[in-house]
Amino acid sequence: MTSAAMPGPVLVIGCGLIGTSAALALTEAGIRVHLEDIRSSTLELAVSRGAGTADPIDSPSLVIVAVPPAEVVATVQRSLQTWPSATITDVASVKAGLQARIAELEGSARYVGSHPMAGSERSGPMAASSRLFEGRPWAVTTTPDTDQAASDLVVALADLVGGVPLVMDAAAHDRAVAVVSHVPHVLSVLAAARLEGAPDEHLALAGPGLRDVTRIAGSDISLWQDILGSNADQVRIVLQHVREDLDRVIDSIGADADGLGRVLQSGQDGTRLIPGKHGAKDAELATVFVSVPDHPGELSRLMAHTGESQVNIEDIRIDHELGRPVGQVEIAVLVASADTLVEALTARGWSAYR
Amino acid sequence: MTSAAMPGPVLVIGCGLIGTSAALALTEAGIRVHLEDIRSSTLELAVSRGAGTADPIDSPSLVIVAVPPAEVVATVQRSLQTWPSATITDVASVKAGLQARIAELEGSARYVGSHPMAGSERSGPMAASSRLFEGRPWAVTTTPDTDQAASDLVVALADLVGGVPLVMDAAAHDRAVAVVSHVPHVLSVLAAARLEGAPDEHLALAGPGLRDVTRIAGSDISLWQDILGSNADQVRIVLQHVREDLDRVIDSIGADADGLGRVLQSGQDGTRLIPGKHGAKDAELATVFVSVPDHPGELSRLMAHTGESQVNIEDIRIDHELGRPVGQVEIAVLVASADTLVEALTARGWSAYR
Repeated sequence: MTSAAMPGPVLVIGCGLIGTSAALALTEAGIRVHLEDIRSSTLELAVSRGAGTADPIDSPSLVIVAVPPAEVVATVQRSLQTWPSATITDVASVKAGLQARIAELEGSARYVGSHPMAGSERSGPMAASSRLFEGRPWAVTTTPDTDQAASDLVVALADLVGGVPLVMDAAAHDRAVAVVSHVPHVLSVLAAARLEGAPDEHLALAGPGLRDVTRIAGSDISLWQDILGSNADQVRIVLQHVREDLDRVIDSIGADADGLGRVLQSGQDGTRLIPGKHGAKDAELATVFVSVPDHPGELSRLMAHTGESQVNIEDIRIDHELGRPVGQVEIAVLVASADTLVEALTARGWSAYR
Repeated sequence: MTSAAMPGPVLVIGCGLIGTSAALALTEAGIRVHLEDIRSSTLELAVSRGAGTADPIDSPSLVIVAVPPAEVVATVQRSLQTWPSATITDVASVKAGLQARIAELEGSARYVGSHPMAGSERSGPMAASSRLFEGRPWAVTTTPDTDQAASDLVVALADLVGGVPLVMDAAAHDRAVAVVSHVPHVLSVLAAARLEGAPDEHLALAGPGLRDVTRIAGSDISLWQDILGSNADQVRIVLQHVREDLDRVIDSIGADADGLGRVLQSGQDGTRLIPGKHGAKDAELATVFVSVPDHPGELSRLMAHTGESQVNIEDIRIDHELGRPVGQVEIAVLVASADTLVEALTARGWSAYR
């Protein structure tokens, strides 16, 4: 089984969350997938989920190396040697260091880096899903020496599993994730770290803004030690700019409102550059607030009534505050639809306002 | 019209979002509310919304000063003089500086500070709602000199409008909001400011984590100049601790994984201190992922099916990515209910996984 874009079977090495999810998605797309994992129990689980076969493979068109970061170079090297006509990709989240080491290997033109921007709080083959990559960016990293057919094949892979392929060089990728992912993670951690030692009565004043800023600070620590460590040079450069801005705030606060305003302005400008619902389109959205009793079925009733209003929902947020029975739900809709929604919900007995 | 907790009519000075919302909530609770505003058009709007009467008042039991921060002290002073038996409160978001200036005034024992932790992207009487304070913390700031009856009356006000009163001294309040609100705001701004100048292909890698961290950086700049400026001393102290942590990260990244791990750990510990759904309870929650076509009614259908499963929803998040038609919805439920929900949704034709 093959497709026009994928001219032969695929080998997935490493049956964790990403490897098994890619295997499931390729299998669903009609591609023949072979699986390998250093642990036979993990391999069996992935096979039992229908991700592919554990049979040995003769001649893969593509090898997806989905092993832990420290093992990527050795596994890519073995794959380049074992399958001299295959394209090899990996899925590690930092690319330039790997790329430089792999460039030294025989056959490296057949290697193309991948970084699917998808994950889950869970790991392993049981957490995998063929839909994991649906609509997510999938960075494809190439060099001037990369074989064009190999690059095309990895772009086709990203497409086949539902991702949005974005071709760039490895250094650009690492600079990009430093700015859009790694440094925001560090700043989330720094905000959350200030909560240590705060009395309960102080923490009781926490609102949804604090929860938003600090959410990702709750992520797995060893994973982030690895990610930040392997992109140290790029992250450090961006953090030094952050430190300059922080010093500007410390110096201007209470003393120079204009200086403070300039930093606030650059932050507001930054939010408008983010693609998607919280970026440029935000100006067109309005928020409708609805109070909802916090027990089964109420939220579903609200959504059903919202559906009857024929207004499309852009986003939903739910606030539970301090153990109160009433939750406040914020429904983001196009500005032009907000009054329609408020009227429809009020007519059905909800306490709604914009 | 009065209630046991509110032994006479209330005067609201300033018919913006907060003043008009409090007036609407008190009117709904059966309290007689008089309104004042320096602009007659604003006053008329608030009256037209049913927030109260513009008739002059003889003897209010409570005066709510809901004017801009710069006018609070003068308005409190006039109120203390004009109504010698009334309790006076204000709603400014930083308290210690005001408290110190008001302490110099004749009758200051009848003044009690308020800070309702509620707001909206919109302002003015037309954006007001009697439900604005529902379930939200409402800080009530007192000193050893504060009249007990006055303090009780402001606690009763917070209760009557649906808020959660939290009595504390003004300095504790200002330290608390520096940690739980003002410094997280600055860090959100610093993360967003780094996006300026980033190429579109870098920004295309943005995921939901970046949107969470930077959301509040899009807020009104002059409002935040005022807030940060009026709490400058407390915010500066906390930002200096942030700077120490930032320097630890810059020094340890790529060089000292254990040192970096300690900062990451303090952030993760901090997130667990936040009350509510993203705090201690997080460990008990599991996320179910569902792919949903992005057009009217689909989300409502999903919610209705979720309701039929009898599983209570703790939180919902919706991701629209890069203009793709499919949105991914994350439904947080108790761990024990997650498989039930996945089975119920799968049986109804949804692509759901945990």
